[in-house]
Amino acid sequence: MTTPPSTDPRHRVVVIGSGFGGLFGTKALRRADVDVTVVAKTTHHLFQPLLYQVATGILSEGEIAPPTREILSRQKNARVLLGEVTDIDLTARTVTSQVLGRETVTPYDSLIVAAGAAQSYFGNDRFAEFAPGMKSIDDALELRGRIFGAFELAELGAARGEDVDHLLTFVVVGAGPTGVEMAGQIAELAQRTLKRDFRAINTRHARVLLVDAAAQVLPAFGAKLGAKAVDRLADLGVEVMLGAMVTEVDERGLQVSFADGRQERLEAVTKIWAAGVQASPLAAILAEQTGASLDRAGRIGVNPDLTLPGHPEVYVVGDMIDLDQLPGVAQTAIQSSRYAAKAIDRRVRGKAPQPPFRYFDKGSMAIISRFGAVAMIGRLRLSGLLAWVLWLTIHLLYIAGFKSRVTALLHWAVSFIGRGRAERTTTEQQVFARRALARLDGGVAGLVSEPAERPLQDRATG
Amino acid sequence: MTTPPSTDPRHRVVVIGSGFGGLFGTKALRRADVDVTVVAKTTHHLFQPLLYQVATGILSEGEIAPPTREILSRQKNARVLLGEVTDIDLTARTVTSQVLGRETVTPYDSLIVAAGAAQSYFGNDRFAEFAPGMKSIDDALELRGRIFGAFELAELGAARGEDVDHLLTFVVVGAGPTGVEMAGQIAELAQRTLKRDFRAINTRHARVLLVDAAAQVLPAFGAKLGAKAVDRLADLGVEVMLGAMVTEVDERGLQVSFADGRQERLEAVTKIWAAGVQASPLAAILAEQTGASLDRAGRIGVNPDLTLPGHPEVYVVGDMIDLDQLPGVAQTAIQSSRYAAKAIDRRVRGKAPQPPFRYFDKGSMAIISRFGAVAMIGRLRLSGLLAWVLWLTIHLLYIAGFKSRVTALLHWAVSFIGRGRAERTTTEQQVFARRALARLDGGVAGLVSEPAERPLQDRATG
Repeated sequence: MTTPPSTDPRHRVVVIGSGFGGLFGTKALRRADVDVTVVAKTTHHLFQPLLYQVATGILSEGEIAPPTREILSRQKNARVLLGEVTDIDLTARTVTSQVLGRETVTPYDSLIVAAGAAQSYFGNDRFAEFAPGMKSIDDALELRGRIFGAFELAELGAARGEDVDHLLTFVVVGAGPTGVEMAGQIAELAQRTLKRDFRAINTRHARVLLVDAAAQVLPAFGAKLGAKAVDRLADLGVEVMLGAMVTEVDERGLQVSFADGRQERLEAVTKIWAAGVQASPLAAILAEQTGASLDRAGRIGVNPDLTLPGHPEVYVVGDMIDLDQLPGVAQTAIQSSRYAAKAIDRRVRGKAPQPPFRYFDKGSMAIISRFGAVAMIGRLRLSGLLAWVLWLTIHLLYIAGFKSRVTALLHWAVSFIGRGRAERTTTEQQVFARRALARLDGGVAGLVSEPAERPLQDRATG
Repeated sequence: MTTPPSTDPRHRVVVIGSGFGGLFGTKALRRADVDVTVVAKTTHHLFQPLLYQVATGILSEGEIAPPTREILSRQKNARVLLGEVTDIDLTARTVTSQVLGRETVTPYDSLIVAAGAAQSYFGNDRFAEFAPGMKSIDDALELRGRIFGAFELAELGAARGEDVDHLLTFVVVGAGPTGVEMAGQIAELAQRTLKRDFRAINTRHARVLLVDAAAQVLPAFGAKLGAKAVDRLADLGVEVMLGAMVTEVDERGLQVSFADGRQERLEAVTKIWAAGVQASPLAAILAEQTGASLDRAGRIGVNPDLTLPGHPEVYVVGDMIDLDQLPGVAQTAIQSSRYAAKAIDRRVRGKAPQPPFRYFDKGSMAIISRFGAVAMIGRLRLSGLLAWVLWLTIHLLYIAGFKSRVTALLHWAVSFIGRGRAERTTTEQQVFARRALARLDGGVAGLVSEPAERPLQDRATG
């Protein structure tokens, strides 16, 4: 069943990661005279900007996470190996990856490190189990279980006459695009999608809070668009709480602290963390071997051509690099990995190196609600329906590029514009995030407020 | 946020389960002067006949498991409570359910028990972790992780030059409709969908075995259609092994025993159990309180009007009952629960009881491949394209009844007829079924055959 290893002495490129950087870098090498091995810890490419739609029941995981090998199936010079990279040896020129405790060592001639970033809790990693991040399919499905599970628990508690305000309060930490989109969609669920589904609770009374230590929402978009976003969020019923630093998170709520010293406790079972990112720990592994700098977010300092100091054969791209204050967006990963791929191709063909990497800002956009978005393209500032149409068009085009499945696109567009949320299904394991809860001492005691003896309805039988 | 409990003294019906029985029973009560409470351990209704399509990447979980409360949102006399029923007290007329360790007690005037059946390992429950069943969304996603994960592990092993036959062998135990459909779809994956995605393995060399102790596949369809199904399965590349009783299952394979005493060991990492069902343990709880009989599959003997002996207010329906050798199919659950609902409605309205329950056989069908199915309607026996068109039409109509989402239907039809398998995404947790493997002593040692030191490619660097 096996094909003998090739004896072709072609230049070997290893690409670490299957996100925007890993995938676009690999695709950019499709005509190069090289063998590419993509090593990634998931079997899929992830369209991260739509993760919040998986968490809120609009899309299925398959719709935003196509298999990396399917995307690359016709690229003959590329292969995909599943594995989490645990080490890079710059001297031996090998990448060590692990699956199920077993190691694979892959040698390279050129390396593109595109391992991205994880959620950062700014040193408070204990928050993670109570406030999952939004970085992976696992995160999104976990949050789907928590969000829909909170309404289920509230229905159970309210039917007993208990106070369920803490179950119907949702706090999103971080008012960047992901946080804004997430808060908007949870409000949409409570206000529209679920309003007829429950009997003991009124989902429209649910509170959705968007909390950030910064002074405005969507700081990257400037004050004017930030203010427009706040207005639109208020229309949706999202309460925006700015200048509020989260100082503690637990099972049942979180603590915020304001600049004037005021403290506030928010009772909320469901918390979502969208507040910061931390570069892959591979950046630190590379820094240690080269003496390259690491910034506070764990990003590594690279040369202007994206190579590692002293290692012209190693490129670092995307969210992992500390260079010219590049934004942590898909375009940075795509452009930098294409640059690296082109550099490798030129080297293999004996051509002169390219000029230093330059980021081309294609603009930024964030969607807030059905028909509402903000966009920034060069000096242009857009908001409302026009920005929304632009957002939808660009996302449709992008997804179409991978999938060419008209029906899936249609499904997405119709679900998103419509009020239906067809992808609300959670596993029995996920509902209420049982895994996370099982880890807590005392189980779920904190989530429900009264003893269990009282029957649901106190009416006499018969 | 709460609505005070109703003081309406209406007749209270509790329905246990949200499968075909629970859902159709509840819907049949929509015009009755009763309050219905559905207590179910999942938040969704499950269209079980298509579970295998979730496991093999055709459908997303949301497409076959819509939220029960959404389906019932406009039925004002129905409410849904999440909880696993742990006890029924026939004297006190209460149902006890549990969520996260906390109990809810719900009183009833009439009860419909539609808790269905779980996979049966015929007393060998230790097989379960190595050969998951096909009864829930959790099962299907677990199997999705194992099936696609096996190809990933094989690719890793083959790239090192290891023998990976055991990773590319898939054994489906049980040649009823579910087993036949599952084996056909895995063969379809190996033969078509995945054939261009790997580099070190040829997925078309994968073996798919369908094993059953019976003498034919699809016994309920008779010898002629059974033989046709075997032919069609052979065309797909499925090896059918009949008269083969599974006597042991472990991490790396299984043992079968033939009538002539011959034993055979099959080396296969991925095993799927579709061989038998066991009624919900609630049947035993009811039998204990009434002295009703229990058959070998744990089904309870009921009166001809589906009530429990001595308890005219308690109906048992669907897969849980031992009556007239009813087949364990959706139609049994639907028809028996509608009968029970009608009986309750008549009782509340003071009308005379119905005549005993009679099952109306609408026919059976099983799909084997794209464009191939077998069907049995009365005396009519169909196979091939005609049976397939019938199957597709009936399933489309059924799903449309719940969803009225044209795009989702279209998506399904196109995926299923086409070769694309868009829903292949697994969580990091699911890939290779890490949970199951973590439980094993010695971890995954049995899955991979050689030490880890050898690099992927042994070619000299640069």
